Amino acid sequence: MKNYILQNENAIYYECGFSCDNVIFISLDQDRYFITDGRYELDAKEKCKTCEIIITRDLVKIARNIIKKSKIKKIYFDPNDFSYETYTLLSKNLHITFSPKPNFSKQKRIIKEARELELIQKAMELGRGGFKKFQDYLLSDGIFKSEQYLAFKARTFLSDNGKFDLSFEPIIAINGNSAKPHATPTDKIYNLYDLLLFDGGIKYERYCSDRTVTFGDDFSSLDEFQRGQIFKNKERQKVYDIVLKAQQTAISKAKIGMRASELDKVGRDIIDEAGYGKYFVHSTGHGVGLDIHEYPNISSKSDVVLEENMVFTIEPGIYLPNDFGVRIEDTIVLKNDGAVIL
Amino acid sequence: MKNYILQNENAIYYECGFSCDNVIFISLDQDRYFITDGRYELDAKEKCKTCEIIITRDLVKIARNIIKKSKIKKIYFDPNDFSYETYTLLSKNLHITFSPKPNFSKQKRIIKEARELELIQKAMELGRGGFKKFQDYLLSDGIFKSEQYLAFKARTFLSDNGKFDLSFEPIIAINGNSAKPHATPTDKIYNLYDLLLFDGGIKYERYCSDRTVTFGDDFSSLDEFQRGQIFKNKERQKVYDIVLKAQQTAISKAKIGMRASELDKVGRDIIDEAGYGKYFVHSTGHGVGLDIHEYPNISSKSDVVLEENMVFTIEPGIYLPNDFGVRIEDTIVLKNDGAVIL
Repeated sequence: MKNYILQNENAIYYECGFSCDNVIFISLDQDRYFITDGRYELDAKEKCKTCEIIITRDLVKIARNIIKKSKIKKIYFDPNDFSYETYTLLSKNLHITFSPKPNFSKQKRIIKEARELELIQKAMELGRGGFKKFQDYLLSDGIFKSEQYLAFKARTFLSDNGKFDLSFEPIIAINGNSAKPHATPTDKIYNLYDLLLFDGGIKYERYCSDRTVTFGDDFSSLDEFQRGQIFKNKERQKVYDIVLKAQQTAISKAKIGMRASELDKVGRDIIDEAGYGKYFVHSTGHGVGLDIHEYPNISSKSDVVLEENMVFTIEPGIYLPNDFGVRIEDTIVLKNDGAVIL
Repeated sequence: MKNYILQNENAIYYECGFSCDNVIFISLDQDRYFITDGRYELDAKEKCKTCEIIITRDLVKIARNIIKKSKIKKIYFDPNDFSYETYTLLSKNLHITFSPKPNFSKQKRIIKEARELELIQKAMELGRGGFKKFQDYLLSDGIFKSEQYLAFKARTFLSDNGKFDLSFEPIIAINGNSAKPHATPTDKIYNLYDLLLFDGGIKYERYCSDRTVTFGDDFSSLDEFQRGQIFKNKERQKVYDIVLKAQQTAISKAKIGMRASELDKVGRDIIDEAGYGKYFVHSTGHGVGLDIHEYPNISSKSDVVLEENMVFTIEPGIYLPNDFGVRIEDTIVLKNDGAVIL
């Protein structure tokens, strides 16, 4: 695939080591064009040495000119990244085939290079530091604070007072709210003997981390970080232990050459057999990289064969509506002898 | 325009008082459909009484069925809101005209209702509270802090410790960085006699506020909030005074019946005459509402006639590359007797 056009910030960063929020990138044979506006001129010229940098107020017009002059017959684009409007303006009367190829950049990025692994590992380390500070805060001052306020503290700790961008808005969800996989924080107050789910991540040099901890409801055991949380409530303990077993087993069974759907089945079978199958309402995991959701999808529908240096989450969960939810998530890299937690 | 389809969260909220991040909305004559997934079922049924709520895993398929059954010949959509992929999946083989109408929802929302004005006013009040706290912090503890850290504090104060969402990531820019209209915070340190530009806003019940203050470089005068900042540096004082005059004059001249381009010209002429015309590199303002950038655009290219209850910013600026920039911004509502600062 020699000729393609991109608009997505992360896809373009992957191509040339620089990006911004107003850019069209074109690759034609050996030539690469980074088309942006005057605000990004200095940075682009400094950081993106492999492209011709073109500064303009009308990105689409310049892109059309480049494509027209090249005399190519076909150019690939990702139909998810271009709005119908931009696609129309770009392609109208050009008499060139714009060939849609969904997610081709994510496909390219599915196996991580050594340099990328280092950055994701660093992001995970920094993220864990944020989780640790959050846990200390929860123990010393968290009680009687709202989900919203705790999410604000989570942001503070994860970002290290604004030094790092976050991969996504942190999820802090207590009891019933934790039964929603994508809960948004409310004014609900954290009380003694509440279950609390914390899902968060940061970006280090644009690469994301992702992790979820479900904290026990036995306050005296909260300092047992991450694994083996203790719950006074017996059903919570049972559900937690099932999810933990599913997650740990999936991590231990992940192997090169396995299909993603097989790996999904490992944890799902454990949850199914325990009778909670219908409460595990999402897939087992997703790739992590420049985007927080990349390839491979670890789902029952994905027949991707897992390869060395793929990075993805393993995050089974059980969600009992209006009662509580448990999710345990790590991000791993697949190596010759199995999954390594990052 | 009776038949239309929407995907934009704010556009849909405007139609029915509820929205979420996975929804297709269809309006056909008297019938309105809110198509979403199971995560949003309870909220949608509670908050969106004027629509038929349809819960599904395949939003596009359901949308196609509804359109097909309706026997309409044409449906409007905003080509900026739909990706090429979604557009294609939606319209393929349906034998119905999908008629692109760019920004028709923003057009609908250009004049604000009383209820909306109240919410924007409240957002502006809360935002001003955040600016005040930021200024107090700057005076007491801001010195020797980085732009990144100050931006983090700005977020803390604006969001009131996470209680409110922000309209956008706050801009904190010192000296040379303030010469970039869309600066991102760096690790540059705030020192005595630095100029600091702060652009920020919050959302109150989804409605945005927007405001910019350029703080003087005479630290002893920093408590003179907002207007009439004092600069030891004479060029900064000169530029600041020109921008302030341009902004105040534009506010005082804004009138119902005027074209947006005429209003843009008011401040631009003052800056031109002072010899800084080429350093005022953006338009005078933009509408504010559910989106931070709405209609009307107050630009030299916009011939929109200004009407009562339009809400927009007035924010001229002068940007001297690698030296410093000044921008002063208020959000106003247009009333019979002129602009009222919100």
